[in-house]
Amino acid sequence: MRAYENLMRFQRDTEALAQVAGRLGWDQETTMPRGAADQRSDEMAAMEGVLHARRIDPRVGDWLDRIDDGALDPVGQAQMRHIRKSYARTMKVPADLAARIAKVTSKAQGQWAQARADEDVAAFLPVLEEVVTLKREEGQALAGQGDVYDAMVDDYEPEMTAADLAAMFDSMRPRLVALRAAVLAAEAPTPLSGHFPAGAQMDLARKLAVTFGYDMARGRIDKAVHPFSSGSGHDVRITTRTNELDPFNCFYSTIHEVGHGCYEQNIDDAYLLTPLGGGVSMGVHESQSRIYENQLGRSRAFTGWLYGQMREAFGDFGITDAEAFYRCVNRVHDGYIRTEADEVQYNLHIMLRFDLERALMSGDLQVADLEAAWNDRFAADFGYAVDKPSDGCLQDVHWSVGLFGYFPTYSLGNVYAGCLHRALRAAVPDLDDQLARGETGGATAWLRDTVQRHGGLYRPAEVIERASGMAPGAEPLIAYLEAKFTELYRL
Amino acid sequence: MRAYENLMRFQRDTEALAQVAGRLGWDQETTMPRGAADQRSDEMAAMEGVLHARRIDPRVGDWLDRIDDGALDPVGQAQMRHIRKSYARTMKVPADLAARIAKVTSKAQGQWAQARADEDVAAFLPVLEEVVTLKREEGQALAGQGDVYDAMVDDYEPEMTAADLAAMFDSMRPRLVALRAAVLAAEAPTPLSGHFPAGAQMDLARKLAVTFGYDMARGRIDKAVHPFSSGSGHDVRITTRTNELDPFNCFYSTIHEVGHGCYEQNIDDAYLLTPLGGGVSMGVHESQSRIYENQLGRSRAFTGWLYGQMREAFGDFGITDAEAFYRCVNRVHDGYIRTEADEVQYNLHIMLRFDLERALMSGDLQVADLEAAWNDRFAADFGYAVDKPSDGCLQDVHWSVGLFGYFPTYSLGNVYAGCLHRALRAAVPDLDDQLARGETGGATAWLRDTVQRHGGLYRPAEVIERASGMAPGAEPLIAYLEAKFTELYRL
Repeated sequence: MRAYENLMRFQRDTEALAQVAGRLGWDQETTMPRGAADQRSDEMAAMEGVLHARRIDPRVGDWLDRIDDGALDPVGQAQMRHIRKSYARTMKVPADLAARIAKVTSKAQGQWAQARADEDVAAFLPVLEEVVTLKREEGQALAGQGDVYDAMVDDYEPEMTAADLAAMFDSMRPRLVALRAAVLAAEAPTPLSGHFPAGAQMDLARKLAVTFGYDMARGRIDKAVHPFSSGSGHDVRITTRTNELDPFNCFYSTIHEVGHGCYEQNIDDAYLLTPLGGGVSMGVHESQSRIYENQLGRSRAFTGWLYGQMREAFGDFGITDAEAFYRCVNRVHDGYIRTEADEVQYNLHIMLRFDLERALMSGDLQVADLEAAWNDRFAADFGYAVDKPSDGCLQDVHWSVGLFGYFPTYSLGNVYAGCLHRALRAAVPDLDDQLARGETGGATAWLRDTVQRHGGLYRPAEVIERASGMAPGAEPLIAYLEAKFTELYRL
Repeated sequence: MRAYENLMRFQRDTEALAQVAGRLGWDQETTMPRGAADQRSDEMAAMEGVLHARRIDPRVGDWLDRIDDGALDPVGQAQMRHIRKSYARTMKVPADLAARIAKVTSKAQGQWAQARADEDVAAFLPVLEEVVTLKREEGQALAGQGDVYDAMVDDYEPEMTAADLAAMFDSMRPRLVALRAAVLAAEAPTPLSGHFPAGAQMDLARKLAVTFGYDMARGRIDKAVHPFSSGSGHDVRITTRTNELDPFNCFYSTIHEVGHGCYEQNIDDAYLLTPLGGGVSMGVHESQSRIYENQLGRSRAFTGWLYGQMREAFGDFGITDAEAFYRCVNRVHDGYIRTEADEVQYNLHIMLRFDLERALMSGDLQVADLEAAWNDRFAADFGYAVDKPSDGCLQDVHWSVGLFGYFPTYSLGNVYAGCLHRALRAAVPDLDDQLARGETGGATAWLRDTVQRHGGLYRPAEVIERASGMAPGAEPLIAYLEAKFTELYRL
């Protein structure tokens, strides 16, 4: 028990330092003077050095050898599961490989941004080749005899396999392609038009955040180029952005990040600054942001309330009734960009990336052939050609920074949200009446109690199963999408 | 040379981590959600732990043993002087004493704030007694056979002694007391009145910052309860505050912090993230903030320009000409509070504290007698009685957090500023013409080149002597004050 206490004390400081490093990242995106970038990268490197030294500290190995997990309570056992896994991962990757990956991805991120600005895929491929080679090497070190891509997914979604993801996605894809085609063949809703001042957008965004239960005493909302959520426990900050022609971008980005932020804020205080004190996986995290944003925020009931709020904030903006507003919020339209995609098309973007990155890692796809493969697949699922690389294989930062195995967790989040939404509807029968009054408490309390408060206590699939009463599967999500858009588009 | 390179690489990371800790402090005063305070103190403690472990790292001792300072260039020798001094200081203070001081001062700060709110000196004295006892113990550990209070001053103003300070202050005090009495017996200028919107104050504050050469690409200005400057190198942030009845508070706080901030921004880039990369001492730091604020910012020439700026920003505010404005800016009036004191009276507040804290440390003054000693001295120098403890011995936070030896550096900064100002006037003969046009470049370039860019390269007194051509002394300051206020008050 002495070893466990020492380890947890050490771990607590490590988690506190990780929070500090995260806060630096927040600062960099929101408040840092632009001339401070070089100095900041030295500061971040020094923090990374401290964190790395703690991860490989020999005392951790000693403590791990001396702790009998079976003698601990379930919380202690869960803490040990996280710590042992993280330690084993660190020890499997040679230090010089980790250093080379850090160096190459730092270079690759800059080259990607430049190539995207220049619409020049060829300028990016050599460094991407380096990234793929090194990440594959890392994957081999992690996987041992197992599958390289599985090992990568495991970093973001513990115990999920590529084969399970592929089976899930393959069952979804034809139904989503068919739904998309049917929707786009039907009469399109009126799009939003007009001018929506940024200040009034931010005021309403803050109101929406509070409406969804985000605690401003333990968080804050700032503007940044890309919306994100940062921090755990009692200091969880989110960002959003404003476009005066498109207030939905601000409002739904905010609700999305509020989903992430509330998850972190609602984790049991007993897990503060421990390995259980953050969201359990990227997929479960995304399930919270997605259910806040889509199943709740884009529901007919809630958009009815939001319509009134927008009329109050902006006056008459040309949409004359709540039903037209609901259709407008949920308008499906052609587009190349994943981050701008609607509920119907979003997962098609993800499956494309999942199949391509998996093939890159297995060697079935060469980096040189990436653009052609992307464009072929896009044409097959979306029915029109990619017009330029920044709308195609250069649109996302992920691969340049070595994030392989991350993309599928976005769709997994949608799948989890589908399961949770089905159970939530059963648990809160008058949910729509509440949402129509702008009350999310019934939904968010259920999510807090069944999912969020547990932090990392259970395994990801276990969390979803305990909350929703079913093993995670795509059926509830697809059924929800088909029902919603069939009705909305009068298919 | 290998040992020197290893040490400097280690030191660079330490400096980077110290910058990170500083940024956390900035965040706490400006942007942190209020509910994050407890978690933040865990995060800060973890950072302090990391920094402390680096300060006592045995590798540092090994490197120090193997480096022959004489074989290094002057910059290397200066780096070593700082590193050896800091290491020796750390090793002299027993770890458990340092821990007890951290614990007691943390408690004392809270008790001081409560006692000040309650006007209850007796409630604060027991914990102040603990602080004094522990700080004296620390001073003895640092001083060895030397003077305890000297050792404390040395933390903030290297190589300055209490005896030298006492001699300097004793020469100033009677002349300042006499000047103060004469000024207050003369006809008082019209005080400022009216309402000055906070937004327009901040706009003009930003303009003043840029006017004084503060680089917004490597800094930023935010509001905080207390104005301060934070950070070194390429990320130097300042704060200010607004009071809609008193715009001078905002403007002169800003110019003061800009002086601190420009010093940090203007240090030679070659010293970035090294022991030479920050201001050399508190006294020299304060000399920059004071000369920006007072000798430049409160000069007749500059206030002439500022008067026009304020007319533009606020319209007619009842002061009808630049001369009346100059007299208004430099109005001397009774008051109890050090931070609100004018140029004539400020140093009297400091000398009071210097004599009392020196006597506390030597044992000549008992903590139980502190309030009476404070009130007697105040009545002697200012001619009226302290009305309540929050206007007397409870007004400053310093002693509660263990800052003994710090107060005299404020007046030392004024003394240094006096020396620099005399030399600056000789070096830039048309300074007043420039200031009257709102141009500070002649003055700030001279300060940058003679003082600021050197960072920690020279010893504090050496910096002032090289820049001003004279050994630091009080005469230029006192002569400047007597001349300025004799003329201004037509004495």
